[in-house]
Amino acid sequence: MASIDLNSDLGESFGAWSMGDDSAMLSIVSSANIACGFHAGDPSGIFKTVKAAAENNVSIGAHVSYPDRVGFGRRDMDVTYDELVADVIYQIGALKGIAAAAGTTVRYVKPHGALYNRIANDAKQGQAVIDAIKAIDSSLVLMGLANAPILELAQKSGLATVAEAFADRAYTPQGQLVSRREAGAVLHDADEIARRMVQLATQGTLQAIDGSVIKIAAQSICVHGDSPGAVAIAREIAAQFKASGIAVEPFAKA
Amino acid sequence: MASIDLNSDLGESFGAWSMGDDSAMLSIVSSANIACGFHAGDPSGIFKTVKAAAENNVSIGAHVSYPDRVGFGRRDMDVTYDELVADVIYQIGALKGIAAAAGTTVRYVKPHGALYNRIANDAKQGQAVIDAIKAIDSSLVLMGLANAPILELAQKSGLATVAEAFADRAYTPQGQLVSRREAGAVLHDADEIARRMVQLATQGTLQAIDGSVIKIAAQSICVHGDSPGAVAIAREIAAQFKASGIAVEPFAKA
Amino acid sequence: MASIDLNSDLGESFGAWSMGDDSAMLSIVSSANIACGFHAGDPSGIFKTVKAAAENNVSIGAHVSYPDRVGFGRRDMDVTYDELVADVIYQIGALKGIAAAAGTTVRYVKPHGALYNRIANDAKQGQAVIDAIKAIDSSLVLMGLANAPILELAQKSGLATVAEAFADRAYTPQGQLVSRREAGAVLHDADEIARRMVQLATQGTLQAIDGSVIKIAAQSICVHGDSPGAVAIAREIAAQFKASGIAVEPFAKA
Amino acid sequence: MASIDLNSDLGESFGAWSMGDDSAMLSIVSSANIACGFHAGDPSGIFKTVKAAAENNVSIGAHVSYPDRVGFGRRDMDVTYDELVADVIYQIGALKGIAAAAGTTVRYVKPHGALYNRIANDAKQGQAVIDAIKAIDSSLVLMGLANAPILELAQKSGLATVAEAFADRAYTPQGQLVSRREAGAVLHDADEIARRMVQLATQGTLQAIDGSVIKIAAQSICVHGDSPGAVAIAREIAAQFKASGIAVEPFAKA
Repeated sequence: MASIDLNSDLGESFGAWSMGDDSAMLSIVSSANIACGFHAGDPSGIFKTVKAAAENNVSIGAHVSYPDRVGFGRRDMDVTYDELVADVIYQIGALKGIAAAAGTTVRYVKPHGALYNRIANDAKQGQAVIDAIKAIDSSLVLMGLANAPILELAQKSGLATVAEAFADRAYTPQGQLVSRREAGAVLHDADEIARRMVQLATQGTLQAIDGSVIKIAAQSICVHGDSPGAVAIAREIAAQFKASGIAVEPFAKA
Repeated sequence: MASIDLNSDLGESFGAWSMGDDSAMLSIVSSANIACGFHAGDPSGIFKTVKAAAENNVSIGAHVSYPDRVGFGRRDMDVTYDELVADVIYQIGALKGIAAAAGTTVRYVKPHGALYNRIANDAKQGQAVIDAIKAIDSSLVLMGLANAPILELAQKSGLATVAEAFADRAYTPQGQLVSRREAGAVLHDADEIARRMVQLATQGTLQAIDGSVIKIAAQSICVHGDSPGAVAIAREIAAQFKASGIAVEPFAKA
Repeated sequence: MASIDLNSDLGESFGAWSMGDDSAMLSIVSSANIACGFHAGDPSGIFKTVKAAAENNVSIGAHVSYPDRVGFGRRDMDVTYDELVADVIYQIGALKGIAAAAGTTVRYVKPHGALYNRIANDAKQGQAVIDAIKAIDSSLVLMGLANAPILELAQKSGLATVAEAFADRAYTPQGQLVSRREAGAVLHDADEIARRMVQLATQGTLQAIDGSVIKIAAQSICVHGDSPGAVAIAREIAAQFKASGIAVEPFAKA
Repeated sequence: MASIDLNSDLGESFGAWSMGDDSAMLSIVSSANIACGFHAGDPSGIFKTVKAAAENNVSIGAHVSYPDRVGFGRRDMDVTYDELVADVIYQIGALKGIAAAAGTTVRYVKPHGALYNRIANDAKQGQAVIDAIKAIDSSLVLMGLANAPILELAQKSGLATVAEAFADRAYTPQGQLVSRREAGAVLHDADEIARRMVQLATQGTLQAIDGSVIKIAAQSICVHGDSPGAVAIAREIAAQFKASGIAVEPFAKA
């Protein structure tokens, strides 16, 4: 029986501001990327979501970010190697502490937003993230973009990795994400998205934006939960997975 | 041979702003209360100080605070129980992560500033700090003001404690700190301060502000390092301890 | 023809997080209390709301707060007089700058949350707010709780004031707000609330929680817009005002 | 008699952390670039420095920055046009408010750190800064790097500008700053620096790093005050200016 991991960004509320439907998503996904306070998440909100994840047997990852709350971590920043190493360690440590208090553990690290995009190809910042993870806990897994150089860089450094695909994004014939600036980059039809993900989970392929069939080696699929429409897409994926006999479960460590 | 712990607040620089002479103090004290980012300390500065503490075999404590950087954690805040529990867990976790990356461990927790003063007598916020520590790591020791109710509250909750005295503060005949608003509350003479601390370390007594002799059961003495004068006082204490055969070493766990 | 001011807290989104339905409320109220960045509001969000307020001919007030974003300004803080004076000036200045850029002006100041409650009765922090307003622009009006001492304190200091009532709150026979901790403190029935406000606007009276009729001298009524239910209540008040021939318009300066 | 403006970055303390010797510098310079809270400066510290500047008849400029306190505004950030416009307006407004409360006015705007360097050549972010200044107060002058494209861009947009040179920096034969990464980029000899600035003030020329003489049309000279050595350099410049009959006074508006 085929199986795949479904991950989603959670714990992104902040103080009086709520974001996303963590409760709904925790009943769908197998892995939760939890905000660590730098782009989103305050301690009591994070604690609440981590406790709920533990109750749902959802695996926990540290969703580390640049220190940019007002920009939600979406703006590229020229941080130094030393700053980035320490920022990543601090965030992972904070989440590990909250996880311990909730009776669970942090299993992986997924950089967020601008940092995620930057390190996909930037070896200097990428190495800082890798070195930070190894320094605090070398058993943590780095989750990164399928086909991106960061994964090989991490493996060379002795870090386990997991590659992820994005459910609602179009791919180029070369297996890259189509830029959001281009038409058709983001998919909206829940049924189409779910059918594509069944194909990915069972055959390891996707239809690229030009119609060609490409290979995507992904052990995890990222789904969003920040709007009712996004939750509906995630539900449709889960439903079609169930109908196709695909188990949703945390990625196996390489 | 008598021995006592000397502790100091370190890691209080922030970004481009430096505070205190961490390097000098780490050659004097046996325990470092490390800022965790809420009142002071940024990740790379904290990491640097924790690494230096590890190299100097100085014991590490989490100097947790209200979330008030601009006020340096010195302003009383009416935080809720849930907020305080999560804030304390988050800060301890972050420091534990940095300590792990530096090859050392966090041994104790000392609340900072307004939080320190508040929980000395406020059972509700005090219980929140205690419950937070127990939730993340019940082997951590709570450092608190000698003679304050918080110590007994912690012990009743199953938490080990260490009582501290303040080197440069005058005491009332009842063994309380003389309020800073009163004349004579803060001592400035290095030699007098050091002689008082030798008496405290060897006999467990201090002369109160009215001349009477009082008992202070303290396993640790807090010294400051945020000005050249403060460092000089700490050096004088260390020198008189050496001359009196008193070892400066981390407190023993009860 | 009777007239009264309706005010609401707006501009409370922050970065990626949205709060309230500013657009809907700006079509209902005559005065907008705009967050200034300390408890809520980021510059680009504030700018957007201020521009929309200007387009709707809604009067603009500075909703100044303690510096506590994660606590949404709802936690009492022991700030010093000098800190509070400067914090209030800074926030009013920032909003005046944004208002100037939007082609409008700031007309009044309404402290937010814990600061609002604190200064209602605390003469020291109250005087700091008053002195700050006078220092930056003595033509600004202070909006405060009807029957609270802060209004008289401000008037004695030469500051114009406007008293406000809360649409959805019960009052004691003495004309004070019933504490939120007590049953019945918050009203939920839109029709009942609107009928009470018509009575307030036309007769200057309200039925207290014990059934007695009390006088409330208020030139402005605070309505909320942070939930669909709150917006519906505001709409019902506006509808009953229209039906009763009560004009909703900015308060007249005393 | 020749005259020139001397400017320095002031008001950069934050809460309990102090930076620079504002008091010493205010007796030397004619223009103070005041931090506005985004990279440095808290309201009460800013207020104190602005009052002292007013007492010393020192002209006041808004030292606006990216929102990056922990990075002291020194890290390039990919902010959007709308975000940057609003951030700049907010900061100028806040400083204008504090200046009004101190009985003085803001006369010019000097972007700080990474923003300063970015807009020197980046027309998109540069235009955002220009548009922000024009929106809040088109009588403000933009201070920028001599010979940089930003000055012409601002003038084309109808904004008055003032060009500045850096006292302690070497210049290329093309009139650009030598990159800090290259040897000899920063000058340290107070006498040499002061002699160069006398030449700049009287002849409008400087010796470039290759020995050639270049023209630098600057109406203001930036001096630092963040270390005792920096203050000493500023004092030496002032002394040689006095000996050479060069008046230090705020730049004249074009």
